[in-house]
Parts: sequence; structure tokens; C-alpha cells
Amino acid sequence: MSARDWDQRGARRRARLAAAADALGGRLQGRHLPAEAAEDLLAAVLRPGDRVCLEGNNQKQADFLARTLAAQDPAQVHDLHMVQSVLALPEHLDLFECGIASRLDFSFSGPQGARLARLAAGGRIAIGAIHTYLELFSRYFVDLTPDVALVCAQAADAQGNLYTGPNTEDTPAIVEATAFRGGLVIAQVNEVVERLPRVDIPADWVDFVVPAPTPAIVEPLFTRDPAQISEVQVLMAMMAIKGLYAEYGVQRLNHGIGFDTAAIELLLPTYGASLGLQGRICRHWALNPHPALIPAIEAGWVESIHSFGSEVGMEDYIRARPDVFFTGADGSLRSNRAFSQAAGHYACDLFIGSTLQMDLAANSSTATAGRIAGFGGAPNMGADARGRRHASPAWLKAGAQARAGRSGAAATPRGTKLVVQMVETFREHMQPAFVEHLDAWALAEQARMPLPPIMVYGEDVTHILTEEGIANLLLVRNDEEREQAVRGVAGYTPVGLARDRRMVENLRDRGVIQRPEDLGVDPRLATRNLLAARSMRELVEASGGLYRPPARFRNW
Amino acid sequence: MSARDWDQRGARRRARLAAAADALGGRLQGRHLPAEAAEDLLAAVLRPGDRVCLEGNNQKQADFLARTLAAQDPAQVHDLHMVQSVLALPEHLDLFECGIASRLDFSFSGPQGARLARLAAGGRIAIGAIHTYLELFSRYFVDLTPDVALVCAQAADAQGNLYTGPNTEDTPAIVEATAFRGGLVIAQVNEVVERLPRVDIPADWVDFVVPAPTPAIVEPLFTRDPAQISEVQVLMAMMAIKGLYAEYGVQRLNHGIGFDTAAIELLLPTYGASLGLQGRICRHWALNPHPALIPAIEAGWVESIHSFGSEVGMEDYIRARPDVFFTGADGSLRSNRAFSQAAGHYACDLFIGSTLQMDLAANSSTATAGRIAGFGGAPNMGADARGRRHASPAWLKAGAQARAGRSGAAATPRGTKLVVQMVETFREHMQPAFVEHLDAWALAEQARMPLPPIMVYGEDVTHILTEEGIANLLLVRNDEEREQAVRGVAGYTPVGLARDRRMVENLRDRGVIQRPEDLGVDPRLATRNLLAARSMRELVEASGGLYRPPARFRNW
Repeated sequence: MSARDWDQRGARRRARLAAAADALGGRLQGRHLPAEAAEDLLAAVLRPGDRVCLEGNNQKQADFLARTLAAQDPAQVHDLHMVQSVLALPEHLDLFECGIASRLDFSFSGPQGARLARLAAGGRIAIGAIHTYLELFSRYFVDLTPDVALVCAQAADAQGNLYTGPNTEDTPAIVEATAFRGGLVIAQVNEVVERLPRVDIPADWVDFVVPAPTPAIVEPLFTRDPAQISEVQVLMAMMAIKGLYAEYGVQRLNHGIGFDTAAIELLLPTYGASLGLQGRICRHWALNPHPALIPAIEAGWVESIHSFGSEVGMEDYIRARPDVFFTGADGSLRSNRAFSQAAGHYACDLFIGSTLQMDLAANSSTATAGRIAGFGGAPNMGADARGRRHASPAWLKAGAQARAGRSGAAATPRGTKLVVQMVETFREHMQPAFVEHLDAWALAEQARMPLPPIMVYGEDVTHILTEEGIANLLLVRNDEEREQAVRGVAGYTPVGLARDRRMVENLRDRGVIQRPEDLGVDPRLATRNLLAARSMRELVEASGGLYRPPARFRNW
Repeated sequence: MSARDWDQRGARRRARLAAAADALGGRLQGRHLPAEAAEDLLAAVLRPGDRVCLEGNNQKQADFLARTLAAQDPAQVHDLHMVQSVLALPEHLDLFECGIASRLDFSFSGPQGARLARLAAGGRIAIGAIHTYLELFSRYFVDLTPDVALVCAQAADAQGNLYTGPNTEDTPAIVEATAFRGGLVIAQVNEVVERLPRVDIPADWVDFVVPAPTPAIVEPLFTRDPAQISEVQVLMAMMAIKGLYAEYGVQRLNHGIGFDTAAIELLLPTYGASLGLQGRICRHWALNPHPALIPAIEAGWVESIHSFGSEVGMEDYIRARPDVFFTGADGSLRSNRAFSQAAGHYACDLFIGSTLQMDLAANSSTATAGRIAGFGGAPNMGADARGRRHASPAWLKAGAQARAGRSGAAATPRGTKLVVQMVETFREHMQPAFVEHLDAWALAEQARMPLPPIMVYGEDVTHILTEEGIANLLLVRNDEEREQAVRGVAGYTPVGLARDRRMVENLRDRGVIQRPEDLGVDPRLATRNLLAARSMRELVEASGGLYRPPARFRNW
């Protein structure tokens, strides 16, 4: 038996707790300290090179702790290795600009993607990797365990139990990985209360609680104003419902963010009902509480929704619909990104999302020149779950299509997840969505990534849906067919114009490509009148006044 | 807005809580009731057709609640839909025999596999599906949410907070899914204490706590006596270390259960060290606390282990090695099957496990005629994680091998997880491990399954390791090569004897098949002397006396 010290992490933890107690003195009461002591706390517990998880979720932000960290003295606190889901706030990148942090592993950087690319190009950030959320959480338990976690909760009680409320999101995964491996957990809270509505994180797992001077930022990322849904999107939504959901009998699914999928949600109680599909499709969801789903919920389409996070303004509506949402004894939503991503991976039959660019192999990416946008949840949900073993009609049918006529290992019967990329042939500013080469390749070279940042691989995409029709890639049998199937729905983009017309017609004869008319979808019916709500106001009405959109979405 | 009642689940929950209060009267104190009231509690809260999660983990069993449930009156409580990870106890099947339950969704049934097959064939059990663990947990949040969960904890306090201790396993996933969707959570505990060593499950999430008359059963499933490791297994372990771990530089991995992988663990500090591999391979693990790993831990090979569950007898050793294991402030292990399975899926570069049968396409299964064994974690870990986006040298190298010379979507650069099936050509009773047709096909027909119960698909297996050598399936390019690669390591089984010798030699020339001598592994060195511990006693010695094997493993 070696004489090695096997409790180095514990010793380090105790030393830091002692340093914190020294630095804070009487300002530390149990686990609690006042906001103005937070800077001293971080200075006392952080060490150069620490791996720090700063809770930046898709929605909820530990913004006060982010500011407090950015205010540290880089001479003392430097070269931190940041691990966090989302880079959303300017402070998240300020840390790198001023030298407090130098290394980054993350999932998504939507609003900060351009600045991130500049900092990476300038050598200020060493990017470890871009992950899908569940992948990043997984690494928290293997080789990216945080030394210090800076997290965010709605409230704490005197003991330090936390209430994360509707936006629980990533907090349980972060805290569990940190607290059970000798790390320190510091939580900012909006308020300290006598009795919590419910306990989401036990006080045992939390070291310090600090009330933030202002409530944590939460972004309403999943709100789409129906007024902005176009008739092209209505047409695409009709094709999705008739050509995919009804065709495969999709009961359990996840929708990405965006107007394309919002249009589908708003067509269920109108167009979907006219096809007699209620109860036959779209019963179970892994989804944030999308306001656009309210009319379908009210019409009785939706049996259950498990959510990654919540949505601002949906609180009262959720509270009034506990049969549909996962809620706590207090009535508010219990979200959990880790479980909802697992649900999206393993318990859903279909993922449908949008992208910015798709190439001839059907690889797609949201990375464009000069922007490192990240992946979010799409790779996890937009990939065949090869560990899945339970059957459903949709999964079996997709699998049978993928395997028909094959031999050997590829012929062994197996189901396949439906992974749909829904994209108009031209995106904003008339940029073609279909390209010969993804910008991701240039970005990989620029940022010295080992692989191009592809969000969903062509190998995993089963269907491409554009205003031109649906390409069913489960039925293609070689590279050339795949390429022509892509070109065949790429419309008037250069990629579409370069199609081999004879081959595309042949693919159409075989049902690989289906036009609206092949699906029995009449484009003349594709008007905004089909939307179950045409404005935010109508969404509010559909909710019986329970949905309360943020001010920026209210124009009445 | 509809006039629908949107709180049916809540109303049902309140009615059941009221029925429990009525039935128990003064025997219910807060959330606590005595053991002898448990039967009345279940009678009061259960309804025919309920979906019930009875905590049957890989190791820890809610055995008292299982017995209590089996003692219900089938005239009152019948047609339950059981959802549970593992069918381990006779009571788990008694429920079906006596009509209390009729439907089953599960993951693993090792010890009860034969009886399960009989009951299914006799129409007493309608099997929904066999899952991998994380897949089943995922469905708890989508379409298999329990109405009632019967779980197991080490201790509770007066409020009803639970301490799950080292064997936390599935409990957090089950309780979260049940408690946040209007279900009832009933926990059996070994003891009620004044103050818990730590809180694993907040009291808020628990409805009833009942002290069991005897401590819950926990099985030492991961203990393998080194005395039973054969020299063939030593040889295979040498090939694994030199031909796979060193070849790919595998830093993060998961080992299946069994003597084959135990041999690898015991060869790291001897053979592995002689190859200069310490620090270069096997640093991070998703793994139960395997006693066979003690010598490697003591020699400083292991930086971290995150565990699905614990292992009986390892408690003090774990407590003394907090730098290696995930532990709580109380010093005991924090396991969590959901997170460890996610880690095995997304944050490991290699999975290596055994199987009972493999066919010519490299599909493998533990299902044999008359036994429905289930899958456990293997499908989740033994599948390419297609949502993974972070790179590692092992993953990139495997991906490059898989894609070399391909075109189109299959040529897009991407990493691949190493999935190794390690199997002797003949298993017990001289049954060949390689077969033309898996028994799984007959079983599927017998039990009317939509697909044969394949544990790991040939499409996902990257390497087959037998005493004859390693077949690298990443390098095969068509069905015939795959078949001959399988035959080429199948030795003297009928499948092996039917090989095309010229083709197998050609595959060897190309490095698709590697014999021990090709790897520089000298079979003469493959003796038990290479094992870092050759007996349970030596394992205990290696642990400095901290490991305390259960009595059945002690023969000194």
C-alpha cells in the first residue's frame, strides 16, 4: 500500500473553506454571506488554473456571480478553465479578455458567437471542445469535474437548501458533479426565505449562498410571435404533419427552437385535427414550455411535456395545467436539462430542427464564417440513439426503410430515430441554405479544431423538409442518390439548380422525394388562417389569460 | 379555453393520500409509518392498472416493499404495469404469477431470466420492452412515468429526507420522475435517524417512509475472485492492453462485469506498467468500485471513478480514497446510475464487455433459448455516441479508421467510440460463442418481440477480442470481410473452422486481424503470475485491509 495522500481534494477544499472563513469573518453566517462580500469570497476560494463551472444555461444566468468573477484581479485569479453550457453574457467573454480565464469547454454561444470566434482567433481562448449539453454534463463526472461551481437559484432558506423553481435547468447536474468530488458550490439566489416552496437542491450540497442584488437574468428564448410566421412556413408545417408525423405515427417528439416548428405547433389543432390526427400523433413531448403549443394543449392534444428549462411568462399557465407539465408540490415547473436531454435522446421518436447550412451529404451546421455558435442540444437529439432497444411503430418503420434491401450487419433489423432538418432553401438576406461546402470547414481551420463543427451529421439525418418538399434519406442507397435527394429539395439555390433532373424525377417516382402535391398538401390552403393563433394576443387568449408574455412581445 | 379538469393527476394523488390517512389513522406520523402498516398503505394507495416502479436496481433491492406488494389481494390490486430496472427477486415475478401485475417494462433480469421467459410464454406477462437503463429512465419522463414508486434508502430523518448512501443507484431518477408528475413516492429505509450523514433525496419529494424489518438486500455483483482467472484470460487481457488501450491511447473507459475485464484491471500495474503505460491509459473510469481495480488504484493509475452503484465490502476503501471516487461530505460513495450511464455513453472512449453469442455480422446477445436476460447498461455504453462532438486521440483514430477510403456522408470526418466484445471462442460447457444464428431470433419469435433482443449490434462493435487475436471491424469494407474477420478469431468453433483461409490471411496482412505475435504479445508470459493479485486475500492486502469482502468470498 502506497504512502500517498489520498485526500488531496479534500485538503484543498478544507483550505479554501478556511480561507473563506478568514476573509469573510463575521460576514459569513452559516452558509450565507451578503452580496458585497462575494468578491472577497471568490478571491479567497479561487486558485489559478481552477476548473470553474459558471452556470450559464440556455435561459437562466448566474449573472451576479459572473460579474463578480469578472471583477477579480487577474494578477491573483488567472488561467481559469471555464466549463459551462452557454456563453450568453458579455461577462462570460470578459473573463478571457482580461486573462482571468484562458481555457473553455462549452455547448452553445449563440449571442456571443462572433466575439468568441475573434477571441479564439486572437489566441485569448483555448477552446477545448464544443459539446452537446448532455455530453458536457457527462464530462463533469469524468474528466471535466469542476473545482468550483457558481450556480443560480430562485431562493434559499436559512440552512442553504435551494429552490431553483421553474428554471432548474442544469443546476442539479452541475452541483452533483462538484459537491461529490471535493469541489465548492457557491449559489446566488434572488431571495432568502423562511420556508422554501420546495427543495430542489439539499443544503448539504451547497457551500455558500449569496443573495444577488438583482434577480437573475432569464431569457424567453422559446417565444415566437405567431404574427411573424410566413405562409411558406405554414406550407412546410403542413408537410411535416401530413408527410412525417402522420406517415410515421409519431407520438413522442422534440421540437427545436424557431418559427418553422412553431408553425407546426400552431397547426395541430387546425390542420392536424382536420386530418383526424388528434390522439394519433404528438402526445408526449420533450420540450420547453413553448407558448406556441398552448392551442394544441388546450385542444387536448398533449398528454405530457418534460422540459429542459422553463419559459418566461408561462408560469401561471403551467401551474394551471399540472396534468401536462412536470410540476412540484408548489405547483411550479420542475425542469431538468439532463433528464430532458436523455428523454429527447432515448424516448422520442422524432427530432425536428432547423439549421443554417446543409451540404450535399446532408451534413448541417449553424457555424458560419467568423461565428462559433456551438451546438446546444441538437447533436444529442438529432442523432440516432443506437443504444435504444424499445420499439414504437414510428421507429420500426424508419428502421425498416433504412434497412430494406441491405445485407450483412446493415440488414440486421433495428429501429431508427427520425431526424428531420426543416429549412427554407434561402435564409435571411437571400443566403442559400444549401451549399457545396459548409462554412464549418473554414472555421475548423481558422480555430484549429480537429473536426469541422457539424451540428447534425448527414448520416443521422433521415429527412430534409423544405418548401420544395420532403427528401427521405432513409431510402437512398448510395452517395449519388443522397446528393440528388438534397439537390432535389434545394429549390432555386445553386445547389438545387445543379440537380440531375432525370435522377431527381426518378427519386420522386420512388417516393424518395415528395412534393406537396405528392403528399396531398394543397399549397393554396397554406395561409396564415390555418394558424390556431395568429398573434401573441391570440396566444394569450387561448391560454385564458394565463400566459403573460414579456413586455417586448406585447403590442396591444 | 376548454372546461377540462387539468388537475386529474393531482386530484388522484390527493384522493390516495386521503385514503392512506384513513387506512392508517394514528399509525401515520407525518410521513412515517411502521413496517406492519405497509400492507395497508399499499392497499390504500394502489389502483388497478397503476404504473408502479418497484426499485429493483442492479444491486440494491426494495425487497420489503416487493414482499409487501406481493402480499396484496389480487382481487383488489391487479393488472399493475411494472416498470423497473432489474428483476432480481422471486417476488418480482410472483407479482405476475398471482395476477397483481400483468405488464412489464424493464432492463435486466439476470437471475430470473428463465422464469421470466416461461411466464411470458404462458401469457402471464405482457412485456412492453427490454431497455438499456438510461433508456428506461428516459421513458419515466415521457411515456412511462410511474404513478407510484416503491424505493429504497439507507436511512430517513424525521422530516422524511432520505440518505441513499453508497448505493444511490437509480433512486434519484425514479423519485424525480414520480414526485414531479403527481405520483406517490414510498420509501423503505433501513433505519430512521436523528440526523442523516447527508441528504440524497429531499423530504419534499417523498410521501411515505417505512422502516423495513431487515436491511435491504444489496448484491456484490462486481466482485470477481482473482483465483478464478484463467491464463487464457490473462492472454486476452494482455492483448487488450497492448493491442487496444495502448494502440488507441484510451484514457477514459468503462469495463463490463466479468473475469475477462477483471483480468485487465489486474494486469495494469504489472504488464501495463512494464509497457510504460501508466498515466497514458486508463485514467478516468465510469465503473462500479470493482475490487479488482484496487491494485491499479494503489499503484496510482486511476485519477477518477464515477460509479453506477457501489460494491459490498468496498465502503471503507472508498472512504479512504476520496481523491479517486465521488464521495459525499460524509465520506461515503455517491453513485448515480443515470449520470454514470450518461458518462459511459458520452465521456468514455472505450467500452469493453463480454457476451454469450456472436453471429457472423458481429451482432451479439446474452439472450439464449428459454432465457430473457435483458440488456442492462451494455447497449447504452456499447454503442457509438453519435451526438458526441468533443475529440480525443482514441476517438479520432477509431473514426479515421472507420472512414478511410469511404465517400459521401460516410467520409465526413467524425470520431468513433471503441466498442470491444471480449469473448473466449468457447464458453461454459463447450458451447461455441460464435454462431451462425443467434438464439435471440428464436426467442423473439417465441416471445413475439418486434425485433430480436440484440445486446450490441455488429454495426456498433469495433473490435472482437478472443484468445485467437483481435479483429478490427473498423477496417472491414464489406459484408464478406466482416464475416471472415469474425471467423478469423473464432478459433475451433464451427464458425471459425469454416473460414476462408486465404481471405483471413489477407485480413491479417492488412492488420484487420492481429494474432498475439502480431501484437508482440508472448503467450508464454500469459501466466497467472502477471496478475497483481491472485486471490481475494491479495486484493484485501493490496487495499491495506480496507476492502472487506463478503463472507462467501473469504476462504482464509
